[in-house]
Amino acid sequence: MSGYTFTTFRGSPSAEIHEVVTERPSLLKDEVLIKVTHSGVCGTDEHFRRSGIALGHEGVGVVTELGPEVKSLKITNPQTYGVASQDSGSFATAAIRSERYLQKIPDGLASDDAAPLMCAGITVWSALSLHGVRPSDTVGVVGIGGLGHLAIQFAKAMGCEVIAFSATSSKEEQSLKLGASCFLSTENRDALPVPKRLDHLLITSSQNPDWDLFIPILANGAKIFPLAVVEENERLDIPYMPCLMKSIQIIFSIPNIRSFRSMLDFAAKHKIGPIIDRDDMTADGIVRSMEKLKAGNTRYRGVLYCDSHN
Amino acid sequence: MSGYTFTTFRGSPSAEIHEVVTERPSLLKDEVLIKVTHSGVCGTDEHFRRSGIALGHEGVGVVTELGPEVKSLKITNPQTYGVASQDSGSFATAAIRSERYLQKIPDGLASDDAAPLMCAGITVWSALSLHGVRPSDTVGVVGIGGLGHLAIQFAKAMGCEVIAFSATSSKEEQSLKLGASCFLSTENRDALPVPKRLDHLLITSSQNPDWDLFIPILANGAKIFPLAVVEENERLDIPYMPCLMKSIQIIFSIPNIRSFRSMLDFAAKHKIGPIIDRDDMTADGIVRSMEKLKAGNTRYRGVLYCDSHN
Repeated sequence: MSGYTFTTFRGSPSAEIHEVVTERPSLLKDEVLIKVTHSGVCGTDEHFRRSGIALGHEGVGVVTELGPEVKSLKITNPQTYGVASQDSGSFATAAIRSERYLQKIPDGLASDDAAPLMCAGITVWSALSLHGVRPSDTVGVVGIGGLGHLAIQFAKAMGCEVIAFSATSSKEEQSLKLGASCFLSTENRDALPVPKRLDHLLITSSQNPDWDLFIPILANGAKIFPLAVVEENERLDIPYMPCLMKSIQIIFSIPNIRSFRSMLDFAAKHKIGPIIDRDDMTADGIVRSMEKLKAGNTRYRGVLYCDSHN
Repeated sequence: MSGYTFTTFRGSPSAEIHEVVTERPSLLKDEVLIKVTHSGVCGTDEHFRRSGIALGHEGVGVVTELGPEVKSLKITNPQTYGVASQDSGSFATAAIRSERYLQKIPDGLASDDAAPLMCAGITVWSALSLHGVRPSDTVGVVGIGGLGHLAIQFAKAMGCEVIAFSATSSKEEQSLKLGASCFLSTENRDALPVPKRLDHLLITSSQNPDWDLFIPILANGAKIFPLAVVEENERLDIPYMPCLMKSIQIIFSIPNIRSFRSMLDFAAKHKIGPIIDRDDMTADGIVRSMEKLKAGNTRYRGVLYCDSHN
């Protein structure tokens, strides 16, 4: 074989998804070729849909070719890897990546389950694991979608009491099944009757929650984690004095690359994974999955499957 | 002596300051009588001026009488104490307090210098000492008034590089004298050319700073401390995505009562104290000092002196 040819799917100014054939004569240095088997579909892909870049950053696949300076990987025993970088390009049949950004998917974690962990999972895990969340704490999760339904599972497995909040009561049953001890719909509410004040509040919805509902149910010293990617000009429009009186901390937290290993191992150990809304790794499949996400109808994370490998 | 009589100064709905004579037949339990020698004048007093409560919460004085269950204090050797509670009542000739709220003012720290430390000092010290500020960090101080001019001194003495920001360039000379390595006026600026990105930003002005000026000069992971008391309905109107991309943390921090001892000892050791704008502990003196503060003309902290003790 004298080179590598694969297909990537890119956005475009018109929002159409274009299929682009990529050819590379050889792998350089510590690059590897990874055959993509699955990719999650994230709100950030929608965010970049018109920018023209290759989309997808929740990729999992099998390494099939190694560059000349690759040290840690072998291909005698095919294993699945997730791509732990913020680089896009997992809406594709294959991708070329430096071996240092690959994370072995643990035995016992299926590739399709692992894909959404590479962004949604690491986002909630970085917030929960790096900022002093204790097992005795009560964690609120606002928005039960791709991030939220994983956040419930991670926080529950950490020992926390989890309270789920959603604008739609249709997510109650699933939230409780995933590990929330209490579910509250925020629709038409004057107050949120929580059993206990919250020590942490993970905001996974892309709109500001109604702070007048949420600040009264926070404990003193509580931490708020605004995790969603929002429109460019949006503000965090939070009331000042109620935050000051309660010594609130607002922690903007992004995925921490050094936390992938612990996240994947913890997920495998505690059987944490997404509820998958499946579609095909084709231009049509991508459009369908992204439109569903945009309309708020994904339950609970879109995953694209490469047919050639499944 | 069969009882205790002293004068307190209260606000009123018309904003006038009323002189009220307080009589107490005896001291109860662990109460002590403290003859007030000095009190700082804080923005919070203005905030409560029309509420009718006794004003002043930066009091220092001498303990002259002890209740029946007082254990730790003696009056054989008169010493000065600050009142480490958020209770108001230091705009007065004397006050009755539980001994557990008194903090001995260290030798080498003058009473008038100590008074503003009991609120302005502990506010900036709690932020700087409890949230991971390291000696190698760069600290920005926005607003060079009562809190800000103390924040410069504390941060400098902790080993930090300090950059001072004010809307008025008239505060440059004093800021540099107090320990800032750089002063930038924010007036009519498109950008703030700091020598180094800031790891921490203490906001001591009562208005939201221009975030579009400040967020670009923050380091990744920087902490913002909004410290001022502001109007009831004010919002922290901060741009969301720039904060997310930089993993900013917004820490609402209030004075920590367990930090008074370390704050007073640190101030005494490092010769940290306010620049005093002196007036009298009288209704007229209080009105003058508060009006000066409101007009932004105090340089840099108002302190009221009880004539009878000075």
